[in-house]
Amino acid sequence: MLDAALLAGTHDRECVFEAFTRRLPTGRRYGILAGTGRLLDLVQRFRFEEPELEWLRSNHVVRDATLDWLADYRFSGTISGYREGEVFFPGSPFLVVDAPFAEGVILETLILSVFNYDSAVASAAARMVTAAVGRPLAEMGSRRANEGAAVAAARAAFIAGFSATSNLEAGRTWGVPTMGTAAHAFTLLHDSEEDAFRAQVDALGPGTTLLVDTFDVEHAIDLAVKVAGPQLGAVRLDSGDLPNLVRTVRAQLDGLGATNTRITVTNDLDEFTIAALQASPVDSYGVGTSVVTGSGFPASGMVYKLVAHRSHNGDGEWIPVAKKSEGKASIAGRKHPVRRLNPSGTAIAEAIHIVENGAAPDDNGRSLLVPLMTDGEAHPEFLGAAGTIAARSHREAAMRELPDQAFRLGRGDPVLPTIYV
Amino acid sequence: MLDAALLAGTHDRECVFEAFTRRLPTGRRYGILAGTGRLLDLVQRFRFEEPELEWLRSNHVVRDATLDWLADYRFSGTISGYREGEVFFPGSPFLVVDAPFAEGVILETLILSVFNYDSAVASAAARMVTAAVGRPLAEMGSRRANEGAAVAAARAAFIAGFSATSNLEAGRTWGVPTMGTAAHAFTLLHDSEEDAFRAQVDALGPGTTLLVDTFDVEHAIDLAVKVAGPQLGAVRLDSGDLPNLVRTVRAQLDGLGATNTRITVTNDLDEFTIAALQASPVDSYGVGTSVVTGSGFPASGMVYKLVAHRSHNGDGEWIPVAKKSEGKASIAGRKHPVRRLNPSGTAIAEAIHIVENGAAPDDNGRSLLVPLMTDGEAHPEFLGAAGTIAARSHREAAMRELPDQAFRLGRGDPVLPTIYV
Repeated sequence: MLDAALLAGTHDRECVFEAFTRRLPTGRRYGILAGTGRLLDLVQRFRFEEPELEWLRSNHVVRDATLDWLADYRFSGTISGYREGEVFFPGSPFLVVDAPFAEGVILETLILSVFNYDSAVASAAARMVTAAVGRPLAEMGSRRANEGAAVAAARAAFIAGFSATSNLEAGRTWGVPTMGTAAHAFTLLHDSEEDAFRAQVDALGPGTTLLVDTFDVEHAIDLAVKVAGPQLGAVRLDSGDLPNLVRTVRAQLDGLGATNTRITVTNDLDEFTIAALQASPVDSYGVGTSVVTGSGFPASGMVYKLVAHRSHNGDGEWIPVAKKSEGKASIAGRKHPVRRLNPSGTAIAEAIHIVENGAAPDDNGRSLLVPLMTDGEAHPEFLGAAGTIAARSHREAAMRELPDQAFRLGRGDPVLPTIYV
Repeated sequence: MLDAALLAGTHDRECVFEAFTRRLPTGRRYGILAGTGRLLDLVQRFRFEEPELEWLRSNHVVRDATLDWLADYRFSGTISGYREGEVFFPGSPFLVVDAPFAEGVILETLILSVFNYDSAVASAAARMVTAAVGRPLAEMGSRRANEGAAVAAARAAFIAGFSATSNLEAGRTWGVPTMGTAAHAFTLLHDSEEDAFRAQVDALGPGTTLLVDTFDVEHAIDLAVKVAGPQLGAVRLDSGDLPNLVRTVRAQLDGLGATNTRITVTNDLDEFTIAALQASPVDSYGVGTSVVTGSGFPASGMVYKLVAHRSHNGDGEWIPVAKKSEGKASIAGRKHPVRRLNPSGTAIAEAIHIVENGAAPDDNGRSLLVPLMTDGEAHPEFLGAAGTIAARSHREAAMRELPDQAFRLGRGDPVLPTIYV
């Protein structure tokens, strides 16, 4: 596309691209947007260096003039969008890119890769946070996702309300609080379970979390309290029939005087099994596979579409464009989305105004687009650890606007209607 | 774990770790192993540099002695495993790591991240290749996966029998054949569909593939053949009721004399919709979301377990170890897996021998473990583009051994029993 547009001289037509999803995953009532902070950083650093150019050259992928263009590539456009952590619905134009065609089209895969995955994780994680009714959740799924995706997943889960991650790189890069855990291998390495517990308590103190299901849970709990004392921080259960087991373990700990020792559970949990433990004396959850794979929906179905370009015939008018493909038609023209609220502050509709020349619509609702990048420079408040924490706060505020039925775990329709006005 | 083992002096006990999956995704009859070539390269380069050490230090994650150990980290162990592209079943010990505890345990997340994702993609992709009955498949799902995962997915799909990818980085890094496509944005950018087609043919020649469903398919096909001539390479359909549409389009192309123009389809395909097109005159498929997300199973459920460590009490005997956790028990001791074949060369069982001191078992079947890395040095034939192509060939050979029922798309049990002997 780039090669052909450069040859045709259409590459520098001023364009508006929008990213949105046509539908939520089946039965989901809302989505949580994540990825913005990562994307802005990636766009600012997006370059074609000599190794890439050389490969394109020697494989005759594009013409020499296109290689020259790529060598100079630096995104110079302007991006606005929903704040990271915002709630979204079908059609929500969560990212709007204003750029010459070539500069904007070449970012399509990067933009969609980041938002499709990060938002899939955040949207699933938010449901788990609801199911946990205030108990803390730790993201422990790095090993179930691609090694790079794992870092993004830890960040997205934190934005959605998880308390911590076992991924240290997410701590280093994005400021996500981190925690560790011991695996069964640590117990098996030692000559006895007692030796293993002692080694862990010696290094990490009695406040550590001991894994108690390697052999026999009842025996291990006696041992754990014997080694660490009743000030033992927590025990972790990674197997078994959790609702019953947790009750028994709580009674045993209390009987041993370890009344402040917490119980953390980690056995293939998802939002439904977490909900099933609401009445059990669990203190915290560790979630792996289900959160990093979006709990059944590992991609958010987001697309990136050209919606308008500026006429090059002298008048400079914006020309709205859309495809008409069966079942996949898009809506032409620049959008301005507004979340309408009722007088008590509860969201009632996603109102999407189609505007010309970027004029703000006349609507009392909460305007959803904010400037994210201007002339190729990202607004710094969205980047790094600060941007990640801001996204987590915004997610909390945006979710508070939603009507109660948004938080039911059962299948339902999107909780707000999307209205084009 | 590392911190505590270093303090306890148990960190350098000689260990054997094995990676395997407890079960295949529901209804799947076999899995395809992918990730080995990527993993060996990542393990060779796995280091803790000053930025990581400084973060660990300033956050008091581990003690100073542990930081020193990490600063010197370089994997010095030995790895054997199934060849990349091999078929696997529940329990198949596809990777065996011989290393001191600390060196081996620290690789757990990296190993599982790589194999869980890459094998999920390859296992799904192999079913699509079967469903396509010899027609070529292109992987076009980069935008539906994390930006790093996308490169791994392109590679895994190629190993599983896909012909090409739209991910140029996978071409550059792993030698996967690449292809391009035009999006609807390219058509919408131009003043008319005819202008867009002409721009594309001018740049890429009449052998290119024109996207014909932006507005009206019938009109676009007339236009495409008018612009490119009957030597037009292909048309792409990305929407609509494909079985019917493809037949109509074929008749129209033939009527225009474009009898060699191919039809490629790309509308949210998976193995089942590909199978449903077997009787339609489709020439090739482009597959996105379903292949990069493992067609419903984005993680392979692989785990990494300590199975033995060498006694430190002077006799140097191997001590087999296993956890007994309810529903998640592991099998102690070093394994030696063999694929048993009947006299006509068809696989009949995955026989897993539990051996002491690494002795090869007495079994006529095909021995499945090969040396991959010795004393920290990867065997070069498994790396890079050459390793990727070798994996693709091995996958083909390994799949030829499977009984016919392996290739049914409907739900079934693993096609070979796993036997411990």
